[in-house]
Amino acid sequence: MNYADRLDAAVAACGNPCLVGLDPHLELLPEEFAVARDTRAPRAERAAAVEAFLCEVVALCAGVVPAVKPQSAFFERLGADGARAWEHVVAAARAAGLLVIGDVKRGDIASTSRAYAQAFLEDAGDARCDAITVNPYLGADSIEPLLEVCARADAGLYVLVRTSNPGSGLFQEHGEPPLAHVVAREVERWGAELRGACGLSSIGAVVGATHSAELATLRALMPHTPLLIPGYGAQGAGALEAVPGFLAGGRGALVNSSRGILYAWRSPEHAGKPWRDASRDAIDAMVREFREALAPA
Amino acid sequence: MNYADRLDAAVAACGNPCLVGLDPHLELLPEEFAVARDTRAPRAERAAAVEAFLCEVVALCAGVVPAVKPQSAFFERLGADGARAWEHVVAAARAAGLLVIGDVKRGDIASTSRAYAQAFLEDAGDARCDAITVNPYLGADSIEPLLEVCARADAGLYVLVRTSNPGSGLFQEHGEPPLAHVVAREVERWGAELRGACGLSSIGAVVGATHSAELATLRALMPHTPLLIPGYGAQGAGALEAVPGFLAGGRGALVNSSRGILYAWRSPEHAGKPWRDASRDAIDAMVREFREALAPA
Repeated sequence: MNYADRLDAAVAACGNPCLVGLDPHLELLPEEFAVARDTRAPRAERAAAVEAFLCEVVALCAGVVPAVKPQSAFFERLGADGARAWEHVVAAARAAGLLVIGDVKRGDIASTSRAYAQAFLEDAGDARCDAITVNPYLGADSIEPLLEVCARADAGLYVLVRTSNPGSGLFQEHGEPPLAHVVAREVERWGAELRGACGLSSIGAVVGATHSAELATLRALMPHTPLLIPGYGAQGAGALEAVPGFLAGGRGALVNSSRGILYAWRSPEHAGKPWRDASRDAIDAMVREFREALAPA
Repeated sequence: MNYADRLDAAVAACGNPCLVGLDPHLELLPEEFAVARDTRAPRAERAAAVEAFLCEVVALCAGVVPAVKPQSAFFERLGADGARAWEHVVAAARAAGLLVIGDVKRGDIASTSRAYAQAFLEDAGDARCDAITVNPYLGADSIEPLLEVCARADAGLYVLVRTSNPGSGLFQEHGEPPLAHVVAREVERWGAELRGACGLSSIGAVVGATHSAELATLRALMPHTPLLIPGYGAQGAGALEAVPGFLAGGRGALVNSSRGILYAWRSPEHAGKPWRDASRDAIDAMVREFREALAPA
């Protein structure tokens, strides 16, 4: 089944659009996984700790949220051992029935983009992702081979359009119309061939919740494009800021929280709780918040 | 010693600005490494073949050219085993006295960009790169942590400004002035704090040889920025198209060739030669071509 339809079904089944970002900041992991940040320990042991932590987070997510989003940078800090942990975490998430969006933000000339798409969406066996994030800076010919792989592997993309960081406007607002709008129109076009029965495409866009007015504009420019909305939680935006990214019925978008879930035990709100309880409560609170924010008026 | 000075010294010592791209296209490897493309073979064996091939290429490059540029996508196709091969190839190149530019084109929000910089430039021990390529789409705050890591690890960056692919203008020419010029000005500014004794910065820019007039303009906008110039050889540009990217004395730029060197035995020009001879001859021809093109008139 095409990615858009699997995504739409998973969101409907869970009754929420929450995406848990698996960002193993080595410095922030709970004490029982502290070997992950011990630079004198063998990398294989450090990576095993990362894997053990994230597999527990995956278990907390299973059946509660539709998808998880591992972030490759934090795995890559542990080299090949980190890459092995990535494979195990992705496989565990798939086995738990979660959709997996690989947050890799790759992008290169066509022959190289094809290799990235094969790496993450096609060749990786049980460790393949359902979708990945990609960077549009190189242009349409760099995206074309990714679209081909998505079509034959029933996979998806999320193209960076307007990112959630404070300085994202420097280049993304350049020109008239602003670059992000030009990219948005292209993303909607690239996705036209990959629409599912649900009416949405498997080619999505990343649009930060931290630019709420922009979010409404970009949603209108991309009516068939599923959005991946970062910026909620630790990055400062609340559920209401993300609402303009949704279509009717709470469809068409996922909202990501990474640090706010994984390291919830570190926040004053969850002070004193064991990390698992804090993370579980943080997931539940996010789910409730979006159910309320997206409920029909 | 800072990256800019190491680079400048290496180019002077070799007497040429040639950069050999280590792009292990599995489908193109010489017959003796064919197991790399055998999808029924264990990934560890496939990755070992990639590693064996590239270590031979590294040996051909040592003492002849200043630097090599492994491309992460082709390693990532083999998952964690590919990541292990990457580590071994980077370590072999460093041990052979070559500078290593990791062509990874990463870019993310600040906390994630920092993790990428640590992964490739700081934490990787013998497998750390001297520099990496990065994507500027997210803006200045996504580059800032990379600059910090470069300063403390004596490493470098090459920021994508104008790429060599045919469709690179779609977004890179957007606006007035064109986006690539705006990015170029920022890159020159970001590099101001990281200039070496040679006068050049450790913060470089990627500008394709396939847009020769643009190359002169961008060189002028970034007078202290070392360039990494792709597009020569298999992508269609000759040495003369790359010349506008250089400063006086053949300084300030590296020109990359990947497929034209690694798979030289497949080209009519080298028909019938064993692959090692073909690759050696292709390296020698590229070196000669640039010595002539850059010789004082």
